[in-house]
Amino acid sequence: MKKGIYLAVLFLNGISLIAQTNNEQTFKEIYKAALTNAKCYTWLDYLSNDIGPRLSGSANAEKAVQYTKSQLETLGLDKVYLQEVMVPKWVRGEKETAYILNYKTKMNVPICALGGSVATPKNGLTAEVIEVHTIAELESLGSKIKGKIVFFNRPMDPENIETFKSYGGCVDQRYAGAMEASKYGAVGTIVRSMNLRLDDFPHTGTQSYGDIPKSDYIPTAAISTNGAELLSKTLKENPKLQFYFKQSCKQMEDVLSYNVIGEIKGSEHPEKIMIVGGHLDSWDLADGSHDDGAGVVQSMEVLKILKNIGYKPKNTIRVVLFMNEENGGRGGAKYEELAKTNHENHIFALESDSGGFSPRGFSFETDDANFNKIVSWKYLFEPYLIHSFVKGHGGSDIAPLTSKTLVKAGLKPDSQRYFDYHHASNDTFDAINKRELELGAATMASLMYLMDQNGIEKSN
Amino acid sequence: MKKGIYLAVLFLNGISLIAQTNNEQTFKEIYKAALTNAKCYTWLDYLSNDIGPRLSGSANAEKAVQYTKSQLETLGLDKVYLQEVMVPKWVRGEKETAYILNYKTKMNVPICALGGSVATPKNGLTAEVIEVHTIAELESLGSKIKGKIVFFNRPMDPENIETFKSYGGCVDQRYAGAMEASKYGAVGTIVRSMNLRLDDFPHTGTQSYGDIPKSDYIPTAAISTNGAELLSKTLKENPKLQFYFKQSCKQMEDVLSYNVIGEIKGSEHPEKIMIVGGHLDSWDLADGSHDDGAGVVQSMEVLKILKNIGYKPKNTIRVVLFMNEENGGRGGAKYEELAKTNHENHIFALESDSGGFSPRGFSFETDDANFNKIVSWKYLFEPYLIHSFVKGHGGSDIAPLTSKTLVKAGLKPDSQRYFDYHHASNDTFDAINKRELELGAATMASLMYLMDQNGIEKSN
Repeated sequence: MKKGIYLAVLFLNGISLIAQTNNEQTFKEIYKAALTNAKCYTWLDYLSNDIGPRLSGSANAEKAVQYTKSQLETLGLDKVYLQEVMVPKWVRGEKETAYILNYKTKMNVPICALGGSVATPKNGLTAEVIEVHTIAELESLGSKIKGKIVFFNRPMDPENIETFKSYGGCVDQRYAGAMEASKYGAVGTIVRSMNLRLDDFPHTGTQSYGDIPKSDYIPTAAISTNGAELLSKTLKENPKLQFYFKQSCKQMEDVLSYNVIGEIKGSEHPEKIMIVGGHLDSWDLADGSHDDGAGVVQSMEVLKILKNIGYKPKNTIRVVLFMNEENGGRGGAKYEELAKTNHENHIFALESDSGGFSPRGFSFETDDANFNKIVSWKYLFEPYLIHSFVKGHGGSDIAPLTSKTLVKAGLKPDSQRYFDYHHASNDTFDAINKRELELGAATMASLMYLMDQNGIEKSN
Repeated sequence: MKKGIYLAVLFLNGISLIAQTNNEQTFKEIYKAALTNAKCYTWLDYLSNDIGPRLSGSANAEKAVQYTKSQLETLGLDKVYLQEVMVPKWVRGEKETAYILNYKTKMNVPICALGGSVATPKNGLTAEVIEVHTIAELESLGSKIKGKIVFFNRPMDPENIETFKSYGGCVDQRYAGAMEASKYGAVGTIVRSMNLRLDDFPHTGTQSYGDIPKSDYIPTAAISTNGAELLSKTLKENPKLQFYFKQSCKQMEDVLSYNVIGEIKGSEHPEKIMIVGGHLDSWDLADGSHDDGAGVVQSMEVLKILKNIGYKPKNTIRVVLFMNEENGGRGGAKYEELAKTNHENHIFALESDSGGFSPRGFSFETDDANFNKIVSWKYLFEPYLIHSFVKGHGGSDIAPLTSKTLVKAGLKPDSQRYFDYHHASNDTFDAINKRELELGAATMASLMYLMDQNGIEKSN
C-alpha cells in the first residue's frame, strides 16, 4: 500500500473509531439521564391521576394540552406552540348495562359502547343473538341475521408471539362489525373484547358505520372476554336466549382542540425536521397510561434528555403530541396538512404508541438502504437489551406524513401485557413501571441521536 | 472435488438442513403447546391462592410438596418421587412494628424482620440511629456504633440495565449487616429494602450472623424504601432521633421436608441426566408467585410440553422442585449429595428463579466450547424474541451440582419489575401474566430439547 493511502486509511479508521466511541459514550449518557434524572414518570402521574381520561373534545383533553405545553415550556426548547385542529366529540353517557336472558334467568355481563356507536332505544334493546366468528360467516348467514343481535366472538390468536399481530387479525369485528351486520338487518352487535386473557373488563375502541345511511346505524358494544365465553356457552345450551343492552352514547358537534409541539432548532440543517411523538387523547374508560400517556411523556423525555446531556442536534427535532388518534386521527392529518402548506421537509418520524413496557426494538417504514444502515447500529443498542429491528408499521399519528425522504419508526415495547389494558378501565398509572417507561424514552432518544448524526440515505 | 466426497458433503448438508428444519418445527410445536395448552398458570393459581406462602418447614410448604407431586403424577412421567431433606424453620411471629421518634413525634414506618433474625426484647428496642452506606463505612465508624441501631441505606443502583446486577451490588448490607454491626456493639440493624422503586413494601430475605457467638446476635429488619427515605431525611434534621422496632421472630428446630422430582427416562442414554427446576419454598410475606412459584410451574410445564408434543428424549429429563432455597439451600445441597451417592451423571441443569416475566434469554455456566455451540442455536430462538445468551450464574439450587461435564443455565426473564415484588407482600398471583409465564416455559423446553438432541461438548 502506498504511504499516502495507508495514512488515509489509518485516518479514516481513526475517525470511524472515534465516532464509534462517541456513540457508545452518548448512549451511556442518554440511558443514565433517563434512569437517574427523568421526569416522564412524574409527568405521567399527573396526566393520569390529576387529569385522567382524555377523550378528544373533553375538558380533560384540553387540560392535557395546557399541562403538556406548560411542561414543555420548562425544558428550554427553542419553540413551544399549539396547532389548532377540529376534533370529533363522542360521549358515552350513562354506564352501559347488559344481561343474558336465559329462560327466566338474568345474567349480567360487563359491556361498554364502542366509540362512535349510537345509543340503544332509551329503555334498551332486547333480541335473540346469533354468534359469528368472521364477517364472511355473517355474510353467509344472510337473512338469518334480520332482527338479531350479532355476536362477533373470534378470540385473539394466542399463538402469535407478537400480540399486535393477533390484534390485527381480530379488530375487523370491532371496526366494521356493526356496519356489516346492519346491511343484513341486525338490530345491534356485541363484539368480544380485543383481549388475550379471560377477565371482566370490556375494551372499547373505535368503530365505523362507513357509508351506510344514518338511519341504518345500529348500536354496538364490546363485551368482556369472560362475558363472551358465558354468552357463547349459554347460546349453545339455549339458541333462543335473549340479550339485553342499554347505552346512551352520542356523537356531538366537533370541538376545537390542539396538537402540542415543542422544538429544538437544528444547528446545521434547521430546515430538516425530525419528529418524535405520541397521542395526547385517550379513551374515556381509564386514564390511558399505556395508551398513550406513556408515548406522550416518553416523547417529551426524549427532548429533555437531549437537552440534559447538552446535545445540539444538526437537524430540527420536534416533539409532537397528537390529538385524536383514537377516534378520528385528526391531529395526525392536520399536522401533515400544515407541514405541506409550510413546505416543511421531514426526514424522520418516530412514534411511541404501543405501551410503556420494556422496550425491545423498533419497526421501520423505509427502504432497504436506510433499513440496512439502521440495522448496522444494532450493536450499540444490544447492551441495553434492545434487539428487535424489523420492517413494519411506524404509528397511526405519523401515518399521514408523506415527505419523500422520510423514514418512519415505531418503538416496539414488550407486547405481552398490552392487550390486558388496551382501551379498558384498567389502563391506569399503577400498571406502569417507572424503569420500563424510562428505558423506552432512552431507547427513543438514542435512535433520534443516531438518525440526527448519520442522516437519512436518499431514497430512489 | 472427488465425486465420493462431493456426495458425502451433499449428504451431510442434507442432514444438517433436515436437522435445522426439524428444530424449527419442534420449536413451533413447543411454543404452540405452551401458548394454547399449558397448565402452568392454573398450577400457579393453586400454589399461590389455594396454598399461599411456603416458607421452609411450614404447613404450606408441605402442602406444596404434596400438590406438585400429585400434579406431576398426572403427566404420565416414568417416575415421580420425593427426596427427604431436613430444613430450617424460622417463624416471623407477630407483625412487626416500628416508628421514628423525632422529638415527641412518632412516625410509623413499615418494616419486616429479615429471615433468620432474632427477636427484639419483648417490648421492642429503642435506640439512636447511625446511617451508613457500606460495611466499610460501618467499620470506619468503629466505637461510634456502640449502643446504636445501624441503618444501612445504600440504594440499588438505577443505572444498571440488568436489575440483578444492582441487587448483587447491595445485598451485602442485608446479608451481613447485622453480623458486622454487632462486632462494633450495635444493638440492631435496619436495612433499606432491596427495591428500585419508592414504595411502602418492606422486603425480607435471608441474613446471616456468620460465626459470631449467639449472645451477640442482634435483631435486624428491612424498612420500605419510602421509610428509608423518611428516616434518612429526618436523621439529617435531627441526628439524635430515636428508632423503635419490635419483632418476635424465632428460629425453631429443623423439620423434615422434601424435594419433589419427576422424570422421563432417556431412550438412548438413560444414565445421562438433564434437570430443570425451581424452588418450591417462598418467603412468608406473600405467596411467592414470582419467587419462585413461576419457576416451579414452568419447570413442570417443560415436561408436560415435551410429553404433549410426543418428544422422546435421548437422555433422562428430570424436573426438580427444590425445597429451602430462600433460607438455607438445603434442597439443592441434598440433591447434589444424593446424586454423588448414586453416582449419577448430570450433563445439564436449567433453573428458573428470576421471576415469571417475559423471557429474554439465558445465562450459562460452562466452558467456551459449549457456550459457542449454544450461541450457534440463537437463530432458532430469535423468532420468539429470545436474544440474550450470556455467560453467568445458573441458579442457587443448581449451584451445588459438580458433575464434570455439566452445563448450567438460568432463564433470564425481563428483570425490570422483579425487585418491585421480590420477597415482599406484593409478590402475588395478580402480578403474573399468563402469556409471559408460558413463554418462559416454552423457552426453557426449547433449550432442553436442543441440549438433549445435541449433547454436551466434553470439557477439557
